[in-house]
Amino acid sequence: MRQTGDDSNPQRARPIGEFELIARLTAGLPARPDVALGPGDDAALLALDPDSPWLLAATVDAQVEGRHFVRGVATPEDVGHKALAVNLSDLAAIGAEPLWALVSLVLPPSYDAAEIERIYAGMRALAERYGVAIAGGNVAAAAGPLVVDVTALGRVRRGAAVTRAGGHPGDALLVTGTLGAAAAGLLALVLAPQQAELAPDVLSFVRAALVAPQPRVAEGRALAAMGGVGAMLDVSDGLAADLRHLCAASGVGALLDAAAIPIAPAARVVAEAYGRDALELALSGGEDYELLCAVRAEQVPAALDAVARAGGMARLIGELTDTSGELRMRGADGISVPLDLRGWDHLRA
Amino acid sequence: MRQTGDDSNPQRARPIGEFELIARLTAGLPARPDVALGPGDDAALLALDPDSPWLLAATVDAQVEGRHFVRGVATPEDVGHKALAVNLSDLAAIGAEPLWALVSLVLPPSYDAAEIERIYAGMRALAERYGVAIAGGNVAAAAGPLVVDVTALGRVRRGAAVTRAGGHPGDALLVTGTLGAAAAGLLALVLAPQQAELAPDVLSFVRAALVAPQPRVAEGRALAAMGGVGAMLDVSDGLAADLRHLCAASGVGALLDAAAIPIAPAARVVAEAYGRDALELALSGGEDYELLCAVRAEQVPAALDAVARAGGMARLIGELTDTSGELRMRGADGISVPLDLRGWDHLRA
Repeated sequence: MRQTGDDSNPQRARPIGEFELIARLTAGLPARPDVALGPGDDAALLALDPDSPWLLAATVDAQVEGRHFVRGVATPEDVGHKALAVNLSDLAAIGAEPLWALVSLVLPPSYDAAEIERIYAGMRALAERYGVAIAGGNVAAAAGPLVVDVTALGRVRRGAAVTRAGGHPGDALLVTGTLGAAAAGLLALVLAPQQAELAPDVLSFVRAALVAPQPRVAEGRALAAMGGVGAMLDVSDGLAADLRHLCAASGVGALLDAAAIPIAPAARVVAEAYGRDALELALSGGEDYELLCAVRAEQVPAALDAVARAGGMARLIGELTDTSGELRMRGADGISVPLDLRGWDHLRA
Repeated sequence: MRQTGDDSNPQRARPIGEFELIARLTAGLPARPDVALGPGDDAALLALDPDSPWLLAATVDAQVEGRHFVRGVATPEDVGHKALAVNLSDLAAIGAEPLWALVSLVLPPSYDAAEIERIYAGMRALAERYGVAIAGGNVAAAAGPLVVDVTALGRVRRGAAVTRAGGHPGDALLVTGTLGAAAAGLLALVLAPQQAELAPDVLSFVRAALVAPQPRVAEGRALAAMGGVGAMLDVSDGLAADLRHLCAASGVGALLDAAAIPIAPAARVVAEAYGRDALELALSGGEDYELLCAVRAEQVPAALDAVARAGGMARLIGELTDTSGELRMRGADGISVPLDLRGWDHLRA
């Protein structure tokens, strides 16, 4: 349920944006009072029982062969892992506890039983790690690309969910983990695999980031639980695009600190080998599945601590501003520029 | 979440059964106590809150171009309608109230914005009829067949859900509506459209049955609410195959009364025009999306009345027996034969 159709990234460009398509589908439908949060955020929040303190969090996302993964680059286990991981990431981004998944496969004849079993093994391993039950599914045999469509369901206490919409000017921006490695993996393994010589550990790191991202489940729940986080989403479209989503939903602007962006060391190596800008990979590459959140300034130490206690790491990368919709990035020289392609071209120069 | 891979129907044969594939996926996963009903029934039943009287009912089913519908035979509106309808039918089969849907599209470039809007219009119209909110979704642009994957979510009171497993010997078998029209539609519109001349009203009826089935939402809820229904499922694989599923889950056998099977009049006309047996279409054609249920014998009048008050109709077609796994059908001569292909060949002769 993330907005896409980001034209700044040709690998992800679509004729009509996903958000627009979903908005059209729901246009004119009567609202239900039990839909606490509808389309447009990382997950929907639904009140199954008006008297219960728990809301259902629900999200769906598909992995499509040739579009989201390349057979041969991603192992079958990777495909199964990632199909569930991207959905657990959406639940994490709203602060929900993952509980159950439904798995719908469109299975072309070129996949044999052994390959399907390996896809399942990858999904099962991740489900087991987070105690997620596969509660149902569907299989349709059909020619075409393999589609692994997963619906993830979880729960969050009323009032404890974190949407994209609660950021305020002055809030600090934190991001978990490191950025750019998935984009580096796409470059090194899919787009131009022969173009540069890379050390095995670098290749292995960026490959894992691309084909088997780790959803920040514990981090998302810890951030939501501490209470000072106003807005959160997962970085699937790239830091710049997802920050734009957060700012649009919250009606604020943002100022990033270029030097603080946690670029993955392996992404720096790949960027250098390919003559690319590592900061650009981190800002616009996408598929990192880290969490970006807006935290009240006085709560930053507590938020960093909460993430650390959850076994992760987070970094302060900027702040929200009152210039609605205006995203800027400040370089080492203290000069800030608009956060768009020209923006980071300028910083690079 | 219906079992498929029924070899008796070549249109539906699959190298590995769906149920087996889902069973493999979930094999070895730790059980969660909040999964009240897992894979293998029409929908999963999930306890979001142990203190709430409500269970979440969840199901997923995909419509894949070329497999579940033929572009040009089904209008875009039909495709959208049916993608939601088959899922509402699964919720109805467990007695749940439909509440929300998530819609995941895999969208090939050959579908333009106008066609997508028409698919949405068909889905929206059905959602509106049942007050279902489209709470989220996903769109992936990719070459290949159009895939419309819908997750339907609903609720049912603890203890009020009707699974496939609660049928007892002596229970009466009821089925809603009429059977065979969808199979007749497949014959007349897809498999051999030029082979016979059919009246427009016949063609129109079997076409609607095939491409735009009506989920028996009110009937399913009414049957579950009356309390005397031990087992229920929707007739998507054909009466014979689905009765087999009900009997397997309940550990019982069944005896059908051939003369009581409610064959759709239009299916009789098509069967005659094509030199086919109308009873065979009703028993093995599938895609009817009527409800089949096992009711305590003394509750049959109440059940028929409950369905009528819900605006539908139901018919008594046989009973469950204590011969586990043995399905038989009784002809007008009182002689019963095994319910398999040879079974109804005998009755026909």
